[in-house]
Amino acid sequence: MSKTVQIALGDVKPLALSILSSFGYGPNHADAIAQMLTTCQLDDCHSHGLFRLFMCIESIKAGKIDGQVEPEISDESTGIVRADARRGMSLLAMEAAIPMLIDKAREHGIAALAINRCFHFSALWPEVERLSNEGLAAMAMVPSHAWVAPAGGTRGTLGTNPLAFSWPRQGTTPFTFDFATSAFARGEIELYKRAGKSLPDGVAIDAEGNPTNDPGAALQGAMLTFGGHKGSALSIMIELMAGPLIDDLTSLESMAYAQGKGGAPYHGEIMLAFDPVRFSGGNRADNDARAERLFADIIDQGARLPSQRRYAARARNLERGYVEIASSLYEDLLALRAWATTRARQKRSGA
Amino acid sequence: MSKTVQIALGDVKPLALSILSSFGYGPNHADAIAQMLTTCQLDDCHSHGLFRLFMCIESIKAGKIDGQVEPEISDESTGIVRADARRGMSLLAMEAAIPMLIDKAREHGIAALAINRCFHFSALWPEVERLSNEGLAAMAMVPSHAWVAPAGGTRGTLGTNPLAFSWPRQGTTPFTFDFATSAFARGEIELYKRAGKSLPDGVAIDAEGNPTNDPGAALQGAMLTFGGHKGSALSIMIELMAGPLIDDLTSLESMAYAQGKGGAPYHGEIMLAFDPVRFSGGNRADNDARAERLFADIIDQGARLPSQRRYAARARNLERGYVEIASSLYEDLLALRAWATTRARQKRSGA
Repeated sequence: MSKTVQIALGDVKPLALSILSSFGYGPNHADAIAQMLTTCQLDDCHSHGLFRLFMCIESIKAGKIDGQVEPEISDESTGIVRADARRGMSLLAMEAAIPMLIDKAREHGIAALAINRCFHFSALWPEVERLSNEGLAAMAMVPSHAWVAPAGGTRGTLGTNPLAFSWPRQGTTPFTFDFATSAFARGEIELYKRAGKSLPDGVAIDAEGNPTNDPGAALQGAMLTFGGHKGSALSIMIELMAGPLIDDLTSLESMAYAQGKGGAPYHGEIMLAFDPVRFSGGNRADNDARAERLFADIIDQGARLPSQRRYAARARNLERGYVEIASSLYEDLLALRAWATTRARQKRSGA
Repeated sequence: MSKTVQIALGDVKPLALSILSSFGYGPNHADAIAQMLTTCQLDDCHSHGLFRLFMCIESIKAGKIDGQVEPEISDESTGIVRADARRGMSLLAMEAAIPMLIDKAREHGIAALAINRCFHFSALWPEVERLSNEGLAAMAMVPSHAWVAPAGGTRGTLGTNPLAFSWPRQGTTPFTFDFATSAFARGEIELYKRAGKSLPDGVAIDAEGNPTNDPGAALQGAMLTFGGHKGSALSIMIELMAGPLIDDLTSLESMAYAQGKGGAPYHGEIMLAFDPVRFSGGNRADNDARAERLFADIIDQGARLPSQRRYAARARNLERGYVEIASSLYEDLLALRAWATTRARQKRSGA
């Protein structure tokens, strides 16, 4: 493993906050984003932890995101909460709307949250896991950019379109998963390119629509979905549910909107919440027990439940009181903060 | 192709009805089942068409299903309809409950139907497609029997656990898919065995949990999910949503309940319905248009939307006025009907 740095648990969020604030995120947005990065970093989910500060900063430097705007939450119908992020990052809108989503799910049994007009960079598992911590089952879906070809296609149309799901368990961490419907994450292909490695079969096509193992050609072409035509169908479902259903952009539209610029993509997100108490017919304990027997049978045969590596990392990091990140990442973050501090000083002195 | 027989469209349902009735399905159940078989046969969905009469008859001959019972529909909460099939086949319960599901979805934006204590043999696409014909988006999930190993596992724990989804389109057939989360359908493996062919890699494991290409060993062992750990996670989600969430059996429990006997498995089903009007923020036409641009981009690159083969078969069969089934299937069905008629005559004469 490359060189690492230990950051005390209490220092992770302040580090993120200081960088976010110095680049123009107001206190509410900075807090929501820093909390999400801290949650991911605690679980050693490096791809969506402090590393994502660069995307957050790139996005606000590009003038795309409003770092100050307050979301508008509306009670759209008995079963639907709408959170208009108003061109802010998704997380503050999610934070503001989630209490109403929980209330509606508990009252009616099932409810949906449509987050609109948001920039989005974050993992979905913390959001569904949070609903499970309130005793609810939950699903979440987002589009992204049109980097992924449909089964039988020749070019990018679909997003990496993750699906996250969580199921509440008594006295232990929830059953939670969060996977991209693309065969690989886009970042993985970039890592293959940097390492000069060939991609496995079935991951990507080149710009002419032919299968390729060359990560460079893949980045010029398109990724494929996992699981062939089934994964492709699932990805299209996610486009529809988190786009046209909730009055927001498809991955094609989000990509066109971005005009080739980097940063977080702009689109919507849908979350669904289900109350096992309301669905249980009065037999909640029996139903919990049958879910636990299912999990036990999976574990008993040596298979792993999703998220177990993440939960183990969380327990370890909580126990030892720090997270470990790559030294190079830490240095880049400090440089980013120093740059912002210098710039702020220059601005104050009128330079 | 093997020899086929043409059955006039108007004769398909009566053929199914006569067989179902003669084996003890009351008029309401016989009608609901015959309608489903006819819908599938019209689309050349042979695996879930008239062929399934054998499973329906096997189930009722085994004394498992109540062919007369009326389902009980209850308004469980604002967002949940419950249909207790009371040990009848699922379809009559679904028929009886779907108007309330539609009403709830239209009124509240989102709603769920939990079908409990049902025997289940049918494809899910006709049910979600039907909701789309009412202008709704829809999902449906069911467990089955524990024939499928979780990723990294050595034995069957999960069902073939299909996921169906449908999206309503203006002036044309819906975007609809319905796929098993197992890599292969169980029937496909049986066909490989009968044909003496080897299975592809990644489809099954033997009774010791080792990968196998031998269909016989696969039937003794377990199937695998499509898409590795992602398909496995999705399959577990379907177990939870269509089992413990709605107060019904997992595939493990359903298999134990069946005690090795054949026929339709006994468990629950969940359907979710979403009203695009309620979710649209008043922009339904714009959202329909963006979904259509997505479909057009997929088709434009030579990829196929799911269900297109089925819709083409439907159009062709409606045009020519008949469906075509294998002669051997038709002869078996006639023999089944003749046997029932003879038995009924014997019973009447006191033999």
